[in-house]
This record gives sequence, structure tokens and C-alpha cells, in this order.
Amino acid sequence: MQTPLNIAIVGATGSVGEALVEILEERAFPVGDLHLLASMESAGKAVAFRGKNVRVREVDSFDFKQVGLVFFAAGEAVSHTFAPRAIEAGCAVVDLAGALQAPAVVPEANAQAFLAGRKAVSPCSPAIALAVALAPLRGMLAMQQVTVTACLAVSSQGREGVAELARQTAELLNVRPLEPAFFDRQVAFNLLAQVGAPDALGHLTLEKRIAEQLRETLGLPLLSISTTCLQAPVFFGDSLALCIRTQGPVDITQVRAVLSVAPGLELVEEPGDYPTAVGDAVGQDVVYAGRLRPGLDDPCELNLWLVLDNVRKGAALNAVQIAELLIKDLT
Amino acid sequence: MQTPLNIAIVGATGSVGEALVEILEERAFPVGDLHLLASMESAGKAVAFRGKNVRVREVDSFDFKQVGLVFFAAGEAVSHTFAPRAIEAGCAVVDLAGALQAPAVVPEANAQAFLAGRKAVSPCSPAIALAVALAPLRGMLAMQQVTVTACLAVSSQGREGVAELARQTAELLNVRPLEPAFFDRQVAFNLLAQVGAPDALGHLTLEKRIAEQLRETLGLPLLSISTTCLQAPVFFGDSLALCIRTQGPVDITQVRAVLSVAPGLELVEEPGDYPTAVGDAVGQDVVYAGRLRPGLDDPCELNLWLVLDNVRKGAALNAVQIAELLIKDLT
Ligand SMILES: NC(=O)c1ccc[n+]([C@@H]2O[C@H](COP(=O)([O-])OP(=O)(O)OC[C@H]3O[C@@H](n4cnc5c(N)ncnc54)[C@H](OP(=O)(O)O)[C@@H]3O)[C@@H](O)[C@H]2O)c1
Ligand SMILES: NC(=O)c1ccc[n+]([C@@H]2O[C@H](COP(=O)([O-])OP(=O)(O)OC[C@H]3O[C@@H](n4cnc5c(N)ncnc54)[C@H](OP(=O)(O)O)[C@@H]3O)[C@@H](O)[C@H]2O)c1
Repeated sequence: MQTPLNIAIVGATGSVGEALVEILEERAFPVGDLHLLASMESAGKAVAFRGKNVRVREVDSFDFKQVGLVFFAAGEAVSHTFAPRAIEAGCAVVDLAGALQAPAVVPEANAQAFLAGRKAVSPCSPAIALAVALAPLRGMLAMQQVTVTACLAVSSQGREGVAELARQTAELLNVRPLEPAFFDRQVAFNLLAQVGAPDALGHLTLEKRIAEQLRETLGLPLLSISTTCLQAPVFFGDSLALCIRTQGPVDITQVRAVLSVAPGLELVEEPGDYPTAVGDAVGQDVVYAGRLRPGLDDPCELNLWLVLDNVRKGAALNAVQIAELLIKDLT
Repeated sequence: MQTPLNIAIVGATGSVGEALVEILEERAFPVGDLHLLASMESAGKAVAFRGKNVRVREVDSFDFKQVGLVFFAAGEAVSHTFAPRAIEAGCAVVDLAGALQAPAVVPEANAQAFLAGRKAVSPCSPAIALAVALAPLRGMLAMQQVTVTACLAVSSQGREGVAELARQTAELLNVRPLEPAFFDRQVAFNLLAQVGAPDALGHLTLEKRIAEQLRETLGLPLLSISTTCLQAPVFFGDSLALCIRTQGPVDITQVRAVLSVAPGLELVEEPGDYPTAVGDAVGQDVVYAGRLRPGLDDPCELNLWLVLDNVRKGAALNAVQIAELLIKDLT
């Protein structure tokens, strides 16, 4: 067994924070003391870990010298403020908010490139799904363009997103007037064309992040990426439709053979079957792929459908996998 | 005023059939006698048209010689069986099921090409949305590839699709066990990766139809098209995310200028605003467009979001517009 490491989770009371606590326990991560941190609002709450209750404390007054590794899962602003303090205190850091200047890592795609690091970013959920599915194809396909429509679960916006979809749905079914609050309009039984505000050209932060993180984790700096991020009325699980264009013709049989043994991926290919967020991905550790098919009219094209649990592999699980790489150096 | 024409609607009791009756009245189409036809099940029902009740009759025993124009909105099998009879009886025919060997027409895109016809297909809803949005760009952009993710409303599967989403949602909110019936799995709070069964290569009939009908209505036989059709938990209104790749660089300002005056299209471009199926499209006649933006890294790329009422412009309204072209020759 490895030497236990003292660990802090910032944002421990959120969707992702709760999943982090669960996954550290599930995977028997060598945790010494576990420090659960959040804002003033949640301080004092108790969270179960390995059969004991751990009290949540405020991050503001936490002394990061007590721990060797910190997960940041409390939004960009919190990472910006506290990650530098943790690093100064000598901690290894995994940032789930994408705020840190640090390598973006998806262990199935770029574990090698990262071995020496003491800080890392766990990419956004769509970038993780894409990296897991495309990394094994790097050797056989000269990928030129990836076009992705990412349909995000409301849980990708945290607990408040989940609560808002539930509230809106109940209001509509009870024929009460709908009052959108957290989302800017009706998301129940609807699709929103964007998640967050666009920049002057019309691109979302998340769309740009997916492109950058995917190029980085795949090690393909010239890959051209087009993404559209939608907000879907789905509680948990992101769904992605993607179209890949390559330099030469695609051999689908060969792609199938590679993807069917790809780490972290499960290809659902029984005739007529396909994976869905709710039916397959939620609560699971792998990215599910389906609808693998050639282009309708372009031999240099490949189409694929991906679903994953945005809170697990799309966030907490990937972060713990990164931590498993980190502790090889730490313990 | 034009000479009135006797008209039959086959499938008059369905979502699209009901919209056809409404739209003929709204647009003051020169209807003489209106014959409403359906299966045995609905025979005898009454439907209001211009303040009077019209009885629904069985299509099997209908004598098409009584009418000059027939709308087919009762599925492919019914079109296959009865459209030839109507044509033999001398009727002009608009087929909404896509079963007839006839030109596919979207008046905003290819009215010219069609002027001489007496039979026409009204394309599937996603193809109509795409034709309305892309037709005005044909002159200025050398479009090479169109990649589309079409998120379909359950009403695109007719009344039963609507009933099933309502039933599933109620079951889930009441924590009763879910029993998918019309759809093969949970569609409420989920996204299904396909609509109908795929062929041996993995393509859906609808995906192939979108590509064929779009090439035809745009008059661009070499346009390469990649489509993915999803079933979304939305009652009414289809939503499409599209990425267009062109031979030369795209001038977004020029595209905006063209689309802002395009017939049948409304561009929603106030800062931070974008159209949605439920908030904008439902009950309206135009296709709404938004999120017009360049590529993230490819100057020869254009991205766009479209929503439309699948039952109106996606079906009934487009069919009536086709009929308005047809009657120029008939009356
Ligand atoms: N959800 C996903 O699918 C997903 C995927 C990838 C990455 N992420 C990232 O993971 C992070 C957490 O997301 P989430 O979905 O878990 O959000 P969430 O459910 O809203 O939880 C937010 C967490 O952050 C804490 N927090 C908020 N403001 C704070 C402050 N000023 N000081 C200290 N703690 C604060 C909250 O604590 P209180 O209880 O005290 O409010 C809570 O623990 C975000 O950065 C998000 O971008 C999320
Ligand atoms: N919904 C859309 O968004 C959309 C868009 C474009 C095109 N379309 C096409 O429009 C057509 C109708 O769609 P819908 O959504 O209105 O479907 P729907 O709500 O299920 O209605 C089906 C209609 O067809 C009639 N019908 C079914 N089987 C029949 C038979 N054997 N003989 C005579 N009538 C029969 C039904 O009559 P009963 O009442 O007697 O059962 C009903 O009037 C389909 O071909 C569809 O592909 C639909």
C-alpha cells in the first residue's frame, strides 16, 4: 500500500465535490486526513467518508500546509484565489474549474506528457469525452477537423442547474406560470442554444475551452475544432454528436477494432442499440460510444455519438485519475 | 379572388393534418369543398373549418375525382397506397411523408425550379429549416460541407410521440417505474441518439432524406452533408446546430446582411439573445436563426443555430405554400 496523503477538497458540498469524496473511497485512494472545504454557508455540515463523518469547513481560514494534495471544485473564482495559496504551501493541485495555468490532463490521452507535473487541470466534461474517444485514433487517422455538438446536462451548471430544471418541470406540469431564475429562460422541454455568455465573435468560453483542451490533451495543435454547446433538459449526463474529417479515407472496421479495446471507452454496437446519458452513462466510469458510421457521401469522414457522466468521468473521476498519476511522485 | 378548389387532407386528425386545416383557413386559401380523411378509427369525428364542422371520413372509400388537390399527411405507407390513386384521378398532390417520386420543394429555396409541377414532396422539417437558411447564401458562399445535428421534438413522431413524453415525464416525477412504449427507452430528461432504425452502415432514413432533400432544394448536387438526428425531450419545435465549410473565407458581416432580409427567416441577434424552439418557434411561421458566428480557428467556416415549428413550417405551412404555387396553374 502507498503512504497515505493528506488531502483537501475545495467545493466538497457541490455535485462534483460529493462525487470526489465517493470516488476517493471507491478507488481506495491512499487518503490520510481528508479536509472538506466550502463557503461559509456550508461550514459545519457533515459528510460521510469511510464510515466516519467529516465536518465541512470554510476554505478562507484553511491552512494548506496541512495537506499534500488539493482538489479545486468550487468554480473559477475560488481556484484563482486559493490555488496559488495551496501551491505556495507546497501542495500538488488538481483544478476542476479550468482556471489554473497548468497542463490539461485526461489520463487515457496524455498521461505520458504529464508524468513530471505537480499541478494539473482536469478538462471540462465534453473535452474529456472527446479526448478519451479520439486519443486511440491518433495513430491511425490523420484527423483534420472535428465538429461537435455537445448537449450538456443541467448538472454541468452545478446543484442550482439541477434544482431549476426540477422546479421548471413541476411548474409546467402543474400549469403554473413559469418563472425562469437560474437559467435565463425555459429549459424544461426546450433546448438552449448556449451555456453562458458569448464573446464578441459569438463563441462561448466553454466552446473555446473544449477546443483548446482537446488539442492539448490529444497533442494535436493543428486540429481544427468547431463546437456548439447546448443546454439540454437532462439532469445528468452529457451527450455529444461528432463528425471527424480526415486527410485520407476512413476504414470504419479498423476504427471499430481500435475503439472496442480503447481504455475508458465502451462501444455499444449491438444492432439497433446505442447508449444514452440516462440509460448508460449516469453513475458509470467509462465514456460510452455508439452510432459509429462513415460519412453519407464523404469517404474521409467518421461520425460518432458519445455519452458520459459529466460529474464522474467528466469531472471527479478524471480528477482522481490525475491524482493517481500525481501521487506516484508524491508518496 | 381565385376560383375555389376542392381539397382533401389525408391524415386530417394528426398533428400535421390539424395544422393544415388551420393554415388553409389562416391564409385564406381558395378552398371550395374540404374533405377530411383518416383511418377507420377517426371516421365520424368533427373538425371546425371556417366556422362549420367538417366530418372526418375514411380514406379507403374516398373518390378522389371530387377534388383537385390532395395533401398527404398520414405516413409513408398511406402515401404509397393512395397518392397514385389521387394522381390517376387527376389531382395535384402534395406529399408530406416524403414517399412520392416528385420534386422536393421549399418555396423560399426552389419555387422557380418547380413552377410546372402538379405533384410535390414537402421535405422533412430539418431539411426545410436548412433550405430556408442556406438558400439565400448560395450566391455568396461556395458551400462545400454542411454538418448538422438536428434535435427533433417528439411531435415529429406525431401524436403518439407527444403522449409518450408527457406520460414518461409524469411517471418519473411521481417516482413510478418507467415503462417506455412508443419510444424504445426513456426519452424524458434524456436524449436518444437516433430516430428510427439505422441501415447497415449506421445511417437513419431521416438522415439520408435530409441530405438528399437539402441538395435538391438548394440545387447543389455536390454539397457534402453530414447529419445526426437526435430525439430530444421537447414537445414542439426542432432545433439544429450547423457548421458550414466553404471554399473561401467567410465574411460574417455579409452573411448577416443577407440573412437579416432572407424570406421566411428571422435572425435573432440582439447581444446575448438567441432563439429557442419553445420561446420563439412554436406557433410561428418563420425559421428563427441565431448564434451566427465564424469558425474558432477556420476562416472558411460558418456556424449557425436554427429553430422552427416542426408541425407548421416544418410540415403543414410549407405544404400550403407549395399548394399556393400549384394553384397558380390549377385555378
Ligand atoms: N458539474 C459538472 O458537470 C462539472 C464538470 C466539470 C467541471 N466542473 C467544475 O467543477 C466545479 C464545481 O462544480 P459543481 O457542479 O460541483 O458546482 P456546485 O454543485 O454548484 O457546487 C459548488 C461548490 O463550490 C463551493 N463554493 C462556491 N462558492 C464558494 C466560495 N466562494 N468559497 C468556497 N466554496 C465555494 C460550494 O460550496 P457551498 O456549499 O458552501 O455553496 C460547493 O461546494 C466548477 O468549477 C465546475 O466548473 C463541473
Ligand atoms: N410531425 C411532424 O413534425 C412532421 C413534419 C414533417 C412531415 N411529417 C409527416 O406528416 C405525416 C403526419 O405526421 P403527424 O405528425 O401528423 O402524425 P400523427 O399525429 O400520428 O397523425 C397521423 C395521421 O395519419 C392518419 N393515418 C394513420 N394511418 C392511417 C391509415 N392507414 N389510413 C388513413 N389515415 C391514417 C391518422 O388518422 P387516425 O386519426 O385515423 O389514426 C392521423 O390523421 C407523416 O407522414 C409525417 O412523416 C410530420
